[in-house]
Amino acid sequence: MQIKLVLEYDGTNYCGWQLQNGQDSIQARIEAALELIFAAPVRLYAAGRTDAGVHARGQVATLRPPRPFDAGELKRALNATLPYDIVVLDGAEVSDNFDPRRDARLRVYEYRVLNRTTRSAFEHRFAWLVRDQLDLDTLNDAAQEFIGEHDFAAFRSLGTEVKSTVRRVDVSQWRREGETLTYRIEATGFLRHQVRTMVGAMIEAGRHKLTPADVGALLASRDRARAPAAVPPSGLFLVEVRY
Amino acid sequence: MQIKLVLEYDGTNYCGWQLQNGQDSIQARIEAALELIFAAPVRLYAAGRTDAGVHARGQVATLRPPRPFDAGELKRALNATLPYDIVVLDGAEVSDNFDPRRDARLRVYEYRVLNRTTRSAFEHRFAWLVRDQLDLDTLNDAAQEFIGEHDFAAFRSLGTEVKSTVRRVDVSQWRREGETLTYRIEATGFLRHQVRTMVGAMIEAGRHKLTPADVGALLASRDRARAPAAVPPSGLFLVEVRY
Repeated sequence: MQIKLVLEYDGTNYCGWQLQNGQDSIQARIEAALELIFAAPVRLYAAGRTDAGVHARGQVATLRPPRPFDAGELKRALNATLPYDIVVLDGAEVSDNFDPRRDARLRVYEYRVLNRTTRSAFEHRFAWLVRDQLDLDTLNDAAQEFIGEHDFAAFRSLGTEVKSTVRRVDVSQWRREGETLTYRIEATGFLRHQVRTMVGAMIEAGRHKLTPADVGALLASRDRARAPAAVPPSGLFLVEVRY
Repeated sequence: MQIKLVLEYDGTNYCGWQLQNGQDSIQARIEAALELIFAAPVRLYAAGRTDAGVHARGQVATLRPPRPFDAGELKRALNATLPYDIVVLDGAEVSDNFDPRRDARLRVYEYRVLNRTTRSAFEHRFAWLVRDQLDLDTLNDAAQEFIGEHDFAAFRSLGTEVKSTVRRVDVSQWRREGETLTYRIEATGFLRHQVRTMVGAMIEAGRHKLTPADVGALLASRDRARAPAAVPPSGLFLVEVRY
């Protein structure tokens, strides 16, 4: 028997999804709650890791309960046990063959930028503050450069080994709601730090320090040394994983 | 010389606006920052007190600086000194006669209800979770009962002395954005716990446990003993004070 959980978490207080010795991770908290419920160790497998400070509105993780257990009941038991910043949105039984990472067709991330001159008492955990006025049209022109299948080597994290750095981007778009600019990207997969480095490049375009064509040239160069630094994790949300 | 500040704060970690012996208040934090800046004690006067856990998007407070000081410069100095959950949105010089409490024409509050079955990793500080499905039309029918000039004695906090419990309500309306229901009220002034007790009554109507007419009858009764308990402070925001 396998159960699939859909998870929401505020990543601010955690070292990221993955277990790390001596640090507080989302995975460790949920596995500890599962161990309380089942009185036995239970291992979680996620659709993807999220880094320290990164949030999720729809992370997916699976487990094999040590004894038969109703998925809805497990959702309720976990929400009664987990800390306030980790929530199970949904629990459902899935086929034993289901693999949350391999079977994912599309992953959706959003990055939130608070574009105003003064810091915010409410958004400091959930957005990156950019004081310079950003131009939405230019941001979207730059975002267009990423649509389609590309080698994203220029936007990968240094020191990470991956088989291929080619990914397909279906949606890459900015929207404005009041003082908040939100970037949405839907892609087959992501390299580590990819979204945050792409956002860094697009924000340079939004500030008119790069042109959208420069962002396209950066992508085409496949040269990590030319890309801007990754922007802070606080603005990044794993929104959805589609199967 | 008098300076008017417009303030935003997350009230979660504070005992409220007002100084209280041995407790951490918004006023104490800003006065401590002012004392650092001016190397002299400075007293703040607010448009109104907010209770423990209540937030503000537009609280107004005034001070008389011990020496001439540019209001924009003071805003920047305070934002560099204050903790992350208290922000000065605006600073402006005002006439010496200006009184932030007495001169206020209208105060605007909003109350946020998260209406879903599962708790939220992001909204637990900023909304009250109501799991029962709420009916927006019924909430608005109940909200209509408060429009106009009324004696709000039924919705006052027990043990508070005030000269008059009559207030005029200009706007009283609910709106839905996704899973969030937000109540907005604009009135000449408010009694302590008034908004939270009114919201408690309207939510009973939204659950169909009271009718909108029952809420009107409760208001007309002026009997505090008949009103529901105040709802939690986490959902309440002082949005604006108009002069």
